[in-house]
Amino acid sequence: MAIKKQDVNPEDDLGFGTQAVRQRIINRDGSINVKRLGIPFFSTTNTYHRLITMKWSSFWLTVIAAYIIVNVFFATIYLSIGISNLHGTADNNVTDPFLNAFFFSAQTLSTVGYGHISPAGVVTNWVAAFESMIGLLAFALATGLLYGRFSRPSAKFVFSDNILIAPYPLTGGRGLMFRLANMRLNILLEVAIEVTFSFNEVVDGKTVRRFYTLPLERSKVSILTLSWTVVHPLTEDSPLYNITEEDMKSSNATFNVLIQAFDDTFSQTVHSRTSYQHNEVVWGAKFTPAFVHDENGLVQLHLGKISDYTKI
Amino acid sequence: MAIKKQDVNPEDDLGFGTQAVRQRIINRDGSINVKRLGIPFFSTTNTYHRLITMKWSSFWLTVIAAYIIVNVFFATIYLSIGISNLHGTADNNVTDPFLNAFFFSAQTLSTVGYGHISPAGVVTNWVAAFESMIGLLAFALATGLLYGRFSRPSAKFVFSDNILIAPYPLTGGRGLMFRLANMRLNILLEVAIEVTFSFNEVVDGKTVRRFYTLPLERSKVSILTLSWTVVHPLTEDSPLYNITEEDMKSSNATFNVLIQAFDDTFSQTVHSRTSYQHNEVVWGAKFTPAFVHDENGLVQLHLGKISDYTKI
Amino acid sequence: MAIKKQDVNPEDDLGFGTQAVRQRIINRDGSINVKRLGIPFFSTTNTYHRLITMKWSSFWLTVIAAYIIVNVFFATIYLSIGISNLHGTADNNVTDPFLNAFFFSAQTLSTVGYGHISPAGVVTNWVAAFESMIGLLAFALATGLLYGRFSRPSAKFVFSDNILIAPYPLTGGRGLMFRLANMRLNILLEVAIEVTFSFNEVVDGKTVRRFYTLPLERSKVSILTLSWTVVHPLTEDSPLYNITEEDMKSSNATFNVLIQAFDDTFSQTVHSRTSYQHNEVVWGAKFTPAFVHDENGLVQLHLGKISDYTKI
Amino acid sequence: MAIKKQDVNPEDDLGFGTQAVRQRIINRDGSINVKRLGIPFFSTTNTYHRLITMKWSSFWLTVIAAYIIVNVFFATIYLSIGISNLHGTADNNVTDPFLNAFFFSAQTLSTVGYGHISPAGVVTNWVAAFESMIGLLAFALATGLLYGRFSRPSAKFVFSDNILIAPYPLTGGRGLMFRLANMRLNILLEVAIEVTFSFNEVVDGKTVRRFYTLPLERSKVSILTLSWTVVHPLTEDSPLYNITEEDMKSSNATFNVLIQAFDDTFSQTVHSRTSYQHNEVVWGAKFTPAFVHDENGLVQLHLGKISDYTKI
Repeated sequence: MAIKKQDVNPEDDLGFGTQAVRQRIINRDGSINVKRLGIPFFSTTNTYHRLITMKWSSFWLTVIAAYIIVNVFFATIYLSIGISNLHGTADNNVTDPFLNAFFFSAQTLSTVGYGHISPAGVVTNWVAAFESMIGLLAFALATGLLYGRFSRPSAKFVFSDNILIAPYPLTGGRGLMFRLANMRLNILLEVAIEVTFSFNEVVDGKTVRRFYTLPLERSKVSILTLSWTVVHPLTEDSPLYNITEEDMKSSNATFNVLIQAFDDTFSQTVHSRTSYQHNEVVWGAKFTPAFVHDENGLVQLHLGKISDYTKI
Repeated sequence: MAIKKQDVNPEDDLGFGTQAVRQRIINRDGSINVKRLGIPFFSTTNTYHRLITMKWSSFWLTVIAAYIIVNVFFATIYLSIGISNLHGTADNNVTDPFLNAFFFSAQTLSTVGYGHISPAGVVTNWVAAFESMIGLLAFALATGLLYGRFSRPSAKFVFSDNILIAPYPLTGGRGLMFRLANMRLNILLEVAIEVTFSFNEVVDGKTVRRFYTLPLERSKVSILTLSWTVVHPLTEDSPLYNITEEDMKSSNATFNVLIQAFDDTFSQTVHSRTSYQHNEVVWGAKFTPAFVHDENGLVQLHLGKISDYTKI
Repeated sequence: MAIKKQDVNPEDDLGFGTQAVRQRIINRDGSINVKRLGIPFFSTTNTYHRLITMKWSSFWLTVIAAYIIVNVFFATIYLSIGISNLHGTADNNVTDPFLNAFFFSAQTLSTVGYGHISPAGVVTNWVAAFESMIGLLAFALATGLLYGRFSRPSAKFVFSDNILIAPYPLTGGRGLMFRLANMRLNILLEVAIEVTFSFNEVVDGKTVRRFYTLPLERSKVSILTLSWTVVHPLTEDSPLYNITEEDMKSSNATFNVLIQAFDDTFSQTVHSRTSYQHNEVVWGAKFTPAFVHDENGLVQLHLGKISDYTKI
Repeated sequence: MAIKKQDVNPEDDLGFGTQAVRQRIINRDGSINVKRLGIPFFSTTNTYHRLITMKWSSFWLTVIAAYIIVNVFFATIYLSIGISNLHGTADNNVTDPFLNAFFFSAQTLSTVGYGHISPAGVVTNWVAAFESMIGLLAFALATGLLYGRFSRPSAKFVFSDNILIAPYPLTGGRGLMFRLANMRLNILLEVAIEVTFSFNEVVDGKTVRRFYTLPLERSKVSILTLSWTVVHPLTEDSPLYNITEEDMKSSNATFNVLIQAFDDTFSQTVHSRTSYQHNEVVWGAKFTPAFVHDENGLVQLHLGKISDYTKI
C-alpha cells in the first residue's frame, strides 16, 4: 500500500471519526449523505430550514394549499354561525353557501375586503376581525419565506467532472488537480479551499477510516474572476506520492472539497462542497484552457469547458 | 488537592474575574445564571431581545393582546366623536355602539376595509386615516418579529448527559470526554469548541474562583456530519492529572462549554453553550457507539443514543 | 517628558495620520468628532444611514410628514381632475372637496379602501391604481425602516466614568484600568478590546500626533457575564511607565477604546467605542466591587456601581 | 527590465492564473472586466443579483411594467369570463370593458378593494381570490427588493485619481502611494487593504501575466476617521525598486486594490475594489493636505481634495 501511514494526521478530519464507512459522506452536489435519527420534526428551525431549502414547485404548492386550507377552515366557521350573517351574498351570483363563505373568507384573509359581502352580527364580526389579523401575519410569513428564498446567499460553483493526475512542472513531479469557476453573477472574494483525502485502512484487523488534509499549491485567492485550478503537488511529503489506481480503489479513496467565500452582492460568507471518488480520478491527463478570446482580443471564460482535458 | 496551581493561566477566563461564586454561571441549556441590576427596561434593543427570545405562547398572547388593546383605544375615540359618524352600523346587526366602533377599528387597523361601516365627518376621517397608517406600521413590526423569530439562526446541539473519565489509548492515560451532535437539519461548518474548567481555591484564606481552558485533542472540525466526541487528555500537563472525585466536589468544579459554528442554511455564525458540574462527571465509563447501520449497510446517527455509556 | 519615544510604533494607529489635532476624535458616546466635507447628500446609503440612526422622535415625525405630504400631493391631483370623479363624497359629511380628496387618497395609499368613496372615470381610476401601488411600496419602505431600527444590532456598554491609575500587584507596579459591563439583555461573546493612547509631540519644532496601542493584561474574553476590568500594566516596557499628570495634560493625552463582540441574539458582530481624556484619569484610586449578593448568596452585578472607586 | 523576477511570489495572485491579458481585470469603479459564458440566465440567485444591482431607473421601470403586465393578464381573464360578472362597472364612468376589468384587477392586486366594483359568480370569485393572494406575494417581493436595495451595505471610497511615486523619508527612499477616504456617513472599522501589482513578462518566448502583492507600510487601520495614504515603500526588497516609467508601460503594469472593512451602521463586512494602470502613475509628486480647519480650529476632511498633489 502506497499510502504512507505516518503522514496521516489524526487532527485533520471532517468530524467523521474513524468509523469505517462504505458510503460517500458528501455528495457531488454538496449535500450530506448521512441520515440522522431522532431529529424533532416540528421544531421552528427545522420547519424554516425545510421551507427555505425545498424546491420552488413544492414551495408554491405549500403556499397555495395553506391558503385554501385556511379559507376552508374559516368558511366552515362562518357557515356554522349562519350564512345569513354574511350580508350581500344574494348579489354575488353564487348559490352555494359554502362557496360564498369561502370567498368572503378569502377577501378577509387577503385584506382585499371589497365589502360587497360584509360581516353582520357580533360573532361573525369577531371572527372576521380575528381572520384579518391572522391573514396579515400568515401572509407576512409566506412573503418573508418567499423573499428569504429569493435573496438567500449561496455559492454555486461549477467543478470539473474529474480530478486529474498530471505532470506538475513547478515541483518537478506530478500533481493532483481539479478546476472550478463561479457559476453566479456575484463577485466572490476571499475564496478559501480545503481538500481532505479519506481512505480505509486495516489496523489490527479492523477497518478504520483515515482522513488527511492535502496541502495545496494555493489554498486561497483574494478574488475569483476566472477559473481556478486547485493543485495538490505529489511531492515526497504527500501521502499520495506513490499511490496507484489500484490503491485508490481498494482503499475506497474519496476527496472531499470544502470551499468558503465572501459574496459581494449579499455581503455574506457562503460555503460550497463537493467530493470526488476514486473512479472519478483520471490518470495522466491535463486540463485544456477554458478561455476564449472575443473579437477585441479580450479574455472570456467559457464555463462549459471547465471539465475539458486531454490524455497525455 | 490535586489541582496544580502553576497550570492555572490567569489569561484564560470567561470574563468572570476571580469572584468566588456558588452558583453555576452557565446553565445546562446555555442561558446565563447571573442577574444584572440596573438594565433599562424600555430600551429598544432590550424590548426586541425579549420579543425575539420569549416563548411562542407568550409571543402570540402579546400580539393578540396588543391587537385588542389598540382596537379598544381607537373604538373609544370613535365613540367619543360620536357613533353617528360611523355610517352603516345600522345594517351590522350589532346593537352595542362600542362593539360597532371596535369592529370598524379592526377593519381599519388591518386595512381590510369592507366599507359596510365607513367613516363620516372630518374628525372621524382623520382618525381613520391615522389608524390605517398605524395599522400598517404595527402589523409590519409584528410580522417582522414573527419572521425574525422564525428565521433566527441558532445552533441546537444535543450534548451527552455526562462527562466521562475514560481510558484514552492515544495518549496512554485517561481522558475527560463528552459527546455532542447537531439536532437541526442545517449543515454546520467550521465548528469550534472551547472547554473551561473552573473551581474554587483558597488563597491567603480567601476563596477565589480559578479558570483554566482545557487543551483538547481536537478543538475544531470543518464539517459536523456525525457525532463528535470532545476529549481532554489527562496527561501530566493537565491540571486535572491526578484529580479525584472528592477534589471536584470540594472545589465546586464546573466545566463550561462554548461552541461556535457556521450555519449553512442561514449563512451566519451561531453559538451554543452548556456546562457540566462535578456531580455530572462519571468516573470509569466509556461511550457506546451512537451509530446504527440501515439495511444497505449505510451509517446512520441515532441522536437518542448520544448519552449512552457503559461502566468499565 | 516621560513618554518614551522609542516605544511609539507608527504601525499602530487609528487611521488618524500624524495630523496634530486639538479635538477629541472619538466622543465618549462613541460617535466620531471629525466633520467631512463633500459627502453627497442624496445617496441611497446615506439616506438609509440617516433614517436608521436618527432619534425615534425624528423618525416618527418623518414618517407622519411623508404620509401627509404624499396624500396632499394625490389629493391635489384628484381635485384637479374633478371632485365629481370621486363618488360617494356626498355621504361623507365632509363639505371641503380638498379634505374629501385627501381622505380618499389616505384610504387608497393605506389600501384600506372602504369604498364609500370610490374612483370614477378613466383618469381618476388610473391615478388610484398608481397610488395604491405607490402606497404598498412606500409603506414597505417605512415598515422596513421601522423594523430595521428596531432589530438593529448594537452593543451598549456602560463604561466607568474614569480611568484609574492604581497599584497592580500582578506585575508588581501600577496599572491603568477602567471597567465596563454589558447594558443589554443580549449575551455578548468573543469580546475583544483595543486601547490606543494618543498624545502630541513636538518633532523638529512641529507638533505631530502620536498613537500607541497599549498592551493589555487581557484583551479578549470568551463571554462577558459580569463586569470586566481592563488593565494596562505600567511596566518598564510601557510608554506610560513614568508618566505624570502634568505630562498627560501638556501632551493632550487621550485614550481611545474600541470594542468588538458577537451578539448572540442577533448573531452578528457588534462594535462600540469610547474615549477618555487626561482630565478623566484619576491618580491613586481603585475600583470598589460592583457585585451584590442576593438573599440566596448568588452573585448579582449592579450596573450603577461600575464607576465607583475609592482613593488610596 | 527592472522588475526583479525572484521577488514574484506565485502564491500571491488574484485568481487570474498566468493567462496573459490585455484588458484591465478590475475597472476603476470596482466592477470586473471579464465576461463569463455559460452562466444560466434564469437562476433565482442571478435574477436577484440583477434586480438588486441594476440602476434605480431600471428598477422602477421593471416594477411598473410588471404591475401593468400582471393587471393586463388578469383583466383579460375577467373579460373572457364576462364583464357582467363584475358588478358596479355601470357606475364607474368608464365605458371600455377592458379598462373596467383592468381597474378592478388593480384594486384586487393591491388589495385596496374599494368594492364599488365587485366580483360575482363562482369563476370570477375564484380568480379574484387567487389574484389577491398573488398580489400580496408579488408586492412582498417588490418591496423586499426595494428595501434590500435601500439597505444593502456597500462601501464607497473616494480614491485619489493617481498613484504617486514620491520621496518617502521613513524608509529613506521613494514610496508608491495613493490616498482614499470614506464617502459614506457610515463609520468604517477594521479597514484592511491589499495591493497587487501585475505585469506581463516573456518566459520562453511566451507572454505570461505575473502578480505580486505589494508590502505596505500599513495594511490595516482600526477605524477610518480621516483620509488614509496607503504607501508601498520602494526599498531594495521591492520588485519595483528600480522600475522606470517605460518599464511600466511596456509590461502593461496594473495595480489592483482590494479593500475590506466592517460597516458599523449595517454591522456587516463590506468590500471595495479599484485599479490603477501605468498611465495613472505620476512620477515625482506628493499629495497636498486634504484637511481644512474650521473657525474653532477643529480639523475637517475635504473629500474633494483627496486627489490633489504637487509636482516636486
